Amino acid sequence: MTTSPRVAIIGTGGIAHVHVRLIRELGGELVGVCGRTLAGAGAFGHAPPFDDPARMLRETKPEIVHVCSPHHLHAEHSIAALEAGAHVLCEKPMATRIEDAERMIAAAKQAGRIGAVAYTYRGYPLVEVLRAKVAADAFGQIRRASGAYLSQDVFAADKYVWMFSPDTTGQSYALMDLGIHWLDLIEYVSGQKITEIAAQFSTHQPERVWHGQLGEGAEPPGIPTADGGLRVQHGLEEQADLLIRLSGGAAGCVTVSGVSPGHPNTIIVSLDGSQAGADWNQQDPNIWIERKPSGNTIHQRSPDVLPERLSWMSSLPAGHAEGYVDAFRNVVRQAWSAMRGADGNYPTFLDGLRGLQLVEAAVQSARTHRSVTV
Amino acid sequence: MTTSPRVAIIGTGGIAHVHVRLIRELGGELVGVCGRTLAGAGAFGHAPPFDDPARMLRETKPEIVHVCSPHHLHAEHSIAALEAGAHVLCEKPMATRIEDAERMIAAAKQAGRIGAVAYTYRGYPLVEVLRAKVAADAFGQIRRASGAYLSQDVFAADKYVWMFSPDTTGQSYALMDLGIHWLDLIEYVSGQKITEIAAQFSTHQPERVWHGQLGEGAEPPGIPTADGGLRVQHGLEEQADLLIRLSGGAAGCVTVSGVSPGHPNTIIVSLDGSQAGADWNQQDPNIWIERKPSGNTIHQRSPDVLPERLSWMSSLPAGHAEGYVDAFRNVVRQAWSAMRGADGNYPTFLDGLRGLQLVEAAVQSARTHRSVTV
Amino acid sequence: MTTSPRVAIIGTGGIAHVHVRLIRELGGELVGVCGRTLAGAGAFGHAPPFDDPARMLRETKPEIVHVCSPHHLHAEHSIAALEAGAHVLCEKPMATRIEDAERMIAAAKQAGRIGAVAYTYRGYPLVEVLRAKVAADAFGQIRRASGAYLSQDVFAADKYVWMFSPDTTGQSYALMDLGIHWLDLIEYVSGQKITEIAAQFSTHQPERVWHGQLGEGAEPPGIPTADGGLRVQHGLEEQADLLIRLSGGAAGCVTVSGVSPGHPNTIIVSLDGSQAGADWNQQDPNIWIERKPSGNTIHQRSPDVLPERLSWMSSLPAGHAEGYVDAFRNVVRQAWSAMRGADGNYPTFLDGLRGLQLVEAAVQSARTHRSVTV
Amino acid sequence: MTTSPRVAIIGTGGIAHVHVRLIRELGGELVGVCGRTLAGAGAFGHAPPFDDPARMLRETKPEIVHVCSPHHLHAEHSIAALEAGAHVLCEKPMATRIEDAERMIAAAKQAGRIGAVAYTYRGYPLVEVLRAKVAADAFGQIRRASGAYLSQDVFAADKYVWMFSPDTTGQSYALMDLGIHWLDLIEYVSGQKITEIAAQFSTHQPERVWHGQLGEGAEPPGIPTADGGLRVQHGLEEQADLLIRLSGGAAGCVTVSGVSPGHPNTIIVSLDGSQAGADWNQQDPNIWIERKPSGNTIHQRSPDVLPERLSWMSSLPAGHAEGYVDAFRNVVRQAWSAMRGADGNYPTFLDGLRGLQLVEAAVQSARTHRSVTV
Repeated sequence: MTTSPRVAIIGTGGIAHVHVRLIRELGGELVGVCGRTLAGAGAFGHAPPFDDPARMLRETKPEIVHVCSPHHLHAEHSIAALEAGAHVLCEKPMATRIEDAERMIAAAKQAGRIGAVAYTYRGYPLVEVLRAKVAADAFGQIRRASGAYLSQDVFAADKYVWMFSPDTTGQSYALMDLGIHWLDLIEYVSGQKITEIAAQFSTHQPERVWHGQLGEGAEPPGIPTADGGLRVQHGLEEQADLLIRLSGGAAGCVTVSGVSPGHPNTIIVSLDGSQAGADWNQQDPNIWIERKPSGNTIHQRSPDVLPERLSWMSSLPAGHAEGYVDAFRNVVRQAWSAMRGADGNYPTFLDGLRGLQLVEAAVQSARTHRSVTV
Repeated sequence: MTTSPRVAIIGTGGIAHVHVRLIRELGGELVGVCGRTLAGAGAFGHAPPFDDPARMLRETKPEIVHVCSPHHLHAEHSIAALEAGAHVLCEKPMATRIEDAERMIAAAKQAGRIGAVAYTYRGYPLVEVLRAKVAADAFGQIRRASGAYLSQDVFAADKYVWMFSPDTTGQSYALMDLGIHWLDLIEYVSGQKITEIAAQFSTHQPERVWHGQLGEGAEPPGIPTADGGLRVQHGLEEQADLLIRLSGGAAGCVTVSGVSPGHPNTIIVSLDGSQAGADWNQQDPNIWIERKPSGNTIHQRSPDVLPERLSWMSSLPAGHAEGYVDAFRNVVRQAWSAMRGADGNYPTFLDGLRGLQLVEAAVQSARTHRSVTV
Repeated sequence: MTTSPRVAIIGTGGIAHVHVRLIRELGGELVGVCGRTLAGAGAFGHAPPFDDPARMLRETKPEIVHVCSPHHLHAEHSIAALEAGAHVLCEKPMATRIEDAERMIAAAKQAGRIGAVAYTYRGYPLVEVLRAKVAADAFGQIRRASGAYLSQDVFAADKYVWMFSPDTTGQSYALMDLGIHWLDLIEYVSGQKITEIAAQFSTHQPERVWHGQLGEGAEPPGIPTADGGLRVQHGLEEQADLLIRLSGGAAGCVTVSGVSPGHPNTIIVSLDGSQAGADWNQQDPNIWIERKPSGNTIHQRSPDVLPERLSWMSSLPAGHAEGYVDAFRNVVRQAWSAMRGADGNYPTFLDGLRGLQLVEAAVQSARTHRSVTV
Repeated sequence: MTTSPRVAIIGTGGIAHVHVRLIRELGGELVGVCGRTLAGAGAFGHAPPFDDPARMLRETKPEIVHVCSPHHLHAEHSIAALEAGAHVLCEKPMATRIEDAERMIAAAKQAGRIGAVAYTYRGYPLVEVLRAKVAADAFGQIRRASGAYLSQDVFAADKYVWMFSPDTTGQSYALMDLGIHWLDLIEYVSGQKITEIAAQFSTHQPERVWHGQLGEGAEPPGIPTADGGLRVQHGLEEQADLLIRLSGGAAGCVTVSGVSPGHPNTIIVSLDGSQAGADWNQQDPNIWIERKPSGNTIHQRSPDVLPERLSWMSSLPAGHAEGYVDAFRNVVRQAWSAMRGADGNYPTFLDGLRGLQLVEAAVQSARTHRSVTV
């Protein structure tokens, strides 16, 4: 990239700090940060603060806007940015309603700008290695596509996060916040599309307590507790178990949970092919395991194992761990590359919409106790 | 046990050899072996051979009969043994039809004899440790009950086993041969009953080739192949993905597969509780993992970690591996103990029937694409 | 074996119970048990009790004697058994002094009887697999032969075992009780002989407290403690670190410790060859790992992976764990086989002497801070 | 840091590219790059090229110089930079001779400038966690300090690297290039100093072939081969096995190897204390294992587990891998911080000298077959 892109951020939560780091490492110029309040944006630092996206867009004229606001505001903020002529990299889930995602796609098309979604985990080099191997038939016909996304984000008793508040995240918690990554990954790696979903949702702790702390969002409706909190009822699933059937004949199951103790961020992709199997786990992202009846082999990430066109994704020799930020940077780098007119295999707004459609199918299945065709 | 029990075996397949070893190690007197042919029973060795169960029962008057014949003959052989006054330890699945299992239960009741089922994996000491911990609320309320039974038994291309022949194993392969163990284990360990099942069945290799080799059973209908085999169409699932909901509020999913490369016999029980989680894998049976947000702890089997009443199940200090035969012996020992009038916590014919009912529910769900209440 | 061998045991400690189990499983007839006291031998059970080895040998006329007495009595008991015409399977270490081992060897030769040593870990199928692969040059020239024997046997503060008492175990604790197994294994697997040793001994808890409990042996000299115990000074190493150089050019290091927390019985054999490397760990005895720059492969034990002449060592298919007792039985079976005139690749008295010589070299090196040529 | 430091690099090998990345991420201004040739420095890119360090120092007036040249030039380049008024961050090993390191220390003192050494692995958050726990007596008295540094850097047959050329790396390959990191780590983490070393060196492939490729350095003396290479004899150890005794009573052993297949960069630190043990492996840097008789616990890195004064070292929540670059940046950040007058716990020139002294002791021990007091 010859010149530094001018980049603005909307949203100042935890993930926004990672975006700042990526913008810097990729040589972007951070021209504005827009928060819910001017004080919040100022405290966030790094760039001139704003509390009004429209004003920030007008005054800073960014080439690229990173949308890191709460999920239900992604559509409004992304559309504003697109209409102001900026490309958009939007956090996941792309929106909380399918119609919002569709409006975002229309806005991007109308503006002739690119919309990308932060499906971070696509950026791991070994995800691309597995994808390339599947495409090259290295495992034979893929028969099983399974895995898990297990986290302990809301395991602590009474733990509250803003996604439990009404109208912030759609009709799902675990799938919208966590599972949407996995659903994207399994389709991306397997090269097959999910055609049928049967889902079972579980709400293990329907009452949780809001205390107005970091990450808990604005005050939700609730019943005051003795210690100054609010007891809130939520109806969202903390655990979703899914059966999936895919277009190429694969089938599998997955559990997505935010209440699985001892799993900080376990994201497993597991494939069985007619020739061999493969496993990858985001918590140990520098290895993958090839399974054969003759033995299971642990393969190390290194720049050499990537397809040549993707060797830029990994710079360190085997045995020198790359991590989450490296993966995230690979995603942003490709999105920016496309935004600036070059090649770039980035997760598009259509991929973001796809995620919402899959979650919607799961929500319907969980309600009706029937499988749903996607 | 003061005197040696007189024990007879019906069936001479691979598992029958393990039964012989157990019978010996437990001090039983093997009085007869009944095969499909006299020659087969003679080649099996170890005891006087028979090809007629009735005659063997009449002539050897066994106190206990181990039924190791093909699944669809379990009922006939078990009922004959019970009617001859013997107790029965029957291989799994107990029968291929629910009505057969019910007839076996009736016959045992009528004869005043005990019917036990070889749910081998219950015999691992750490299975009892987990069960006791769940019962003592060590993990809090159990919320997730998941796992897998992955094997490569029929992974090889064209691989044929007798269970693919018509009328030998009911309407299921993977669940009947493998999954029934897991379904028993998850209820046994969690202390909860499965109340709802949604299933997705996959037949990845519907054509397989019979060559009349060991384990392939009698000649099935099929189309001759160039190399003297028979190309057989079967409609059974090689992979079953299930969603389960349990009586105490737990939910989970499980994949059962006979075509998962690199998995000789992976049987995973994974629980999430409101306080902690737990994992156990049959392939590494001397450890279990306790999961907590503060860290995951690998616990070793040792006689000390068992509840005192069960300390006999394990004799070796930690770090000295016990194995499959030790587990199997623990199951047989308890069944024999009960048969001889003492205490014994063994898998009963009712547990065997339960397995068939769960498989039946899964079969129905897979057909209708709806969840089935058990 | 056509007839049951008549077998007697001298010694009634923990390991003697494992011997009884093996004798039974192998179809031996246990004709006598000799303890330090008649009461002890009676309490041990299983066979007529004795407190005088000579008398037991005279009255029971065993074909085979298993010597499980304290280390410093192995020579006396083995020689008595050999002179009475019995073959001897002696626990390790074979003796506490080299001259005792040499007398045992002479006695066996004089009597025309076989002397075997219970190097249990040789009996694991995968130990034979690795040995056969090394011999077949599967890893290329072996360059590194390393590993560890880490246990927590005497980790607990003040923990006393009888080997800390004077004159019971020679000039070493960790190497004599634990390390001697590893030294045998590394020579057995690598096919190379240790030619040079440099050792570093550490005594981390030189004072320990005897309470006369099981496994603590007879009362040693010491200073009475408030709670009725005896505070005993010992000068033996609880941790030994060794450098070894081997006859074929391999070199490596090993730590042997009885005070390594979290290691119930970790015995690691690790080889680097000029083509590939290999690792095996006794605590996970059903797998071994082949290391190559292209990836490390986990291989499963199964009867198929053994050289055909050794396929009897393993009977269960992959994924069905075999354990410590299976390994031990393989060793005893081969020793018995040789004793009864058939083939049998068992650890001989010469192998037992070899162990003492290696320990002696390490003791000398630790004292002089110089490497010692063996 | 209020203003960007002006930073120059001497050396353009592989590691220099990582330095550029770190300089950028930390906000430094790269003002010059000095290579062996102007063309090489130009091809390296990123900043104005030089082939004369003196001229670069004179013209660019850097505040900080990163010395990444071949080992035997570290002294010359560092001293030039210090005399020019710059602070120096020097790659490891600090020099190839102890007297050179001493001259560097004197030059830094004379110039009133800071000299730091790139002991990269100190920068991993969990290294600091273990160090803090040892210091807080969390494991009790440290008794065993062991580990390994296993790599396959020069495993390939004939593989040549410039460190095999005469006068480039002192009297050692494996210890100078790899082991020096481990020796620093074990003292850093254990808080104890090595007081005695016994070493065993092995040269497994004394002949290797130079082809003038990347990383092979300038043409060494050798015998021409048919394919245009040079067959070179080297006398350096590719594998070093060490026994170490430490000031606080700990003892252990370590193998350092560049020819261990399947080990891209395994760096293990393993401690046994009187209360618990601990293991950490650089290839899986986001976890450490606490060992206790009651079980071994896998602890995850997260910002929360660091001592508060060090919480800046880690920014990602548990389950989101940090890697090698994050660790390296932490080291550089602290060195720069100290160079610019603030706090910074960085590896000093004295730590660099220490490494050379330990290697020298090992070299002497390997020659004399006696342990050497440090």
